[in-house]
Amino acid sequence: MKLASLNSSRDGQLIVVNAELTKYAAADSVAPTLQSALDRWQDCAPKLQTIADQLQGDELTGEPFTQESCASPLPRAYHWVDGSAYVNHVELVRKARGAEMPESFWTDPLMYQGGSDTFLAPREAIPLGDVAWGMDLEAEVAVVVDDVPMGISTDAAAQHIKLIMLVNDVSLRNLIPAELAKGFGFYQAKPSSSFSPVAATPDEIGDAWDGRKLHLPLRTFLNGELIGEPNAGVDMTFDFAQLITHAAKTRPLGAGTIIGSGTVSNTDRSSGSCCLAEIRMLEIIEHGEPKTEFMKAGDRVQIHMLDKKGQNIFGDIDQVVVAYE
Amino acid sequence: MKLASLNSSRDGQLIVVNAELTKYAAADSVAPTLQSALDRWQDCAPKLQTIADQLQGDELTGEPFTQESCASPLPRAYHWVDGSAYVNHVELVRKARGAEMPESFWTDPLMYQGGSDTFLAPREAIPLGDVAWGMDLEAEVAVVVDDVPMGISTDAAAQHIKLIMLVNDVSLRNLIPAELAKGFGFYQAKPSSSFSPVAATPDEIGDAWDGRKLHLPLRTFLNGELIGEPNAGVDMTFDFAQLITHAAKTRPLGAGTIIGSGTVSNTDRSSGSCCLAEIRMLEIIEHGEPKTEFMKAGDRVQIHMLDKKGQNIFGDIDQVVVAYE
Repeated sequence: MKLASLNSSRDGQLIVVNAELTKYAAADSVAPTLQSALDRWQDCAPKLQTIADQLQGDELTGEPFTQESCASPLPRAYHWVDGSAYVNHVELVRKARGAEMPESFWTDPLMYQGGSDTFLAPREAIPLGDVAWGMDLEAEVAVVVDDVPMGISTDAAAQHIKLIMLVNDVSLRNLIPAELAKGFGFYQAKPSSSFSPVAATPDEIGDAWDGRKLHLPLRTFLNGELIGEPNAGVDMTFDFAQLITHAAKTRPLGAGTIIGSGTVSNTDRSSGSCCLAEIRMLEIIEHGEPKTEFMKAGDRVQIHMLDKKGQNIFGDIDQVVVAYE
Repeated sequence: MKLASLNSSRDGQLIVVNAELTKYAAADSVAPTLQSALDRWQDCAPKLQTIADQLQGDELTGEPFTQESCASPLPRAYHWVDGSAYVNHVELVRKARGAEMPESFWTDPLMYQGGSDTFLAPREAIPLGDVAWGMDLEAEVAVVVDDVPMGISTDAAAQHIKLIMLVNDVSLRNLIPAELAKGFGFYQAKPSSSFSPVAATPDEIGDAWDGRKLHLPLRTFLNGELIGEPNAGVDMTFDFAQLITHAAKTRPLGAGTIIGSGTVSNTDRSSGSCCLAEIRMLEIIEHGEPKTEFMKAGDRVQIHMLDKKGQNIFGDIDQVVVAYE
């Protein structure tokens, strides 16, 4: 099934959307919000599936669905942890600045805790306080889990993946070096992210979801031009089950925790890039300096994923950068 | 007024507690949870104050209050960001390992994003997966804000401080060096924290709260022995208003965001220490090696703060470490 949140309040109103993203049915008889459904997932999921089946089979008429009416599926969350699972991307970034990547990065996942209190809606403008901050997009895949016990095994972790969605993990590249040099990780460099209008259960994706990875191209556009369509199932060094195990090593994860893949990136560079930093790194390696500029007011980002039949799975993240006064 | 959350569900049940921490009144006529009250603080605060006044004036009988019945005031939160505002503490840690602290640390706050989905209750056991992780306590002061706009000034930031409470920011010291070396900040090294049973509004604290700092000793006990009582208003290089401004530089802060002070520490070492790492650093400087061990199963941590009349303001964090199987 596909779930979304109408942008009606801080936590949104949970709705069920049909596979074609053309109509929706209210789900408030099951749970008022997606967080509430995740808090009681064992109980709620079958009831939401019944609504989805009725909507898909036209037993329920539903209402016309518009992606513009959506908040991020979890408009705010209690935990958003983002990995950097496409290690070839990390290696490339290091190479461009002439640094060696530690060998341990191939076996020990990089993950950081992101801000989760003020997610942007998928069609919401991205406020930029200063163009000198170097605003970048990062197109990623993310999963949502129910309650995960501390110390969980990787096999067991895979069973906790309940929803899949896309992310635009906005980054302020020029704030990163000074912030990381302080040793406490990203904070100001990672403003509010946005998620795809729709979150889908794993079964909705069919055999492109292998239980731990999503094997489809992630398509990213800048100002209407396709800049990347790497396959999210290729070159993902750490799968989502491994990322969950890493995240839950010393504490449990609460229901509704969102785990991100990090910028999707393939070693086959013909598939393009899902962030401007990677494009700039390739330019530095080729030309000695970057040609692509970071985003400024008016720039537009679109991110989506099509299934093997060309059907848009999660809807479109479609955002314009605006100057923040 | 003083607010708390009965440990009855994921988000607790909001109650109003009297100044002496002896009785409470339900607040569900105003808001079911503290998060809900913070989401509508302008509307809810006066109504909660009325209940508090009636309870304090014996117009409301109330129920007997026991700290053991409490969750952390926000049992889970959308944003928990912790500073390291007592820079002399950071300098000491660096000195013990023979490193210079960058001069910028005196002017640019250190802050990290912590896990907020699974806070422990103030009397809940702290699960420890491996004694080799080097579990430490960190006694801190924290504030809770309502909605804070991006780019807020420091003067305006101070007006958003709605509640004050105490924290035990549990840290796994031996996981920190490898994690920080990776460059993405703390993650596994910071398991679930716990907060004092009660959160107090600034007016409740009287002139010990100057609008930006809390000028009272923070008392920390290990296995019943007082190990520190530094004054939280002394040697705090960055006050809470400055920490909020730093946190909100590139994004807004959602209502219910918790901002921590970092381990309270005075340059006058006779007031002791609020974490074991600091005690160990002083031992290294004095004796060449640490004598105090990190926590193991069975160790007990207590943290509280008394007002000038000896009244316990926030109740006691009182936790025992247990081995996690």
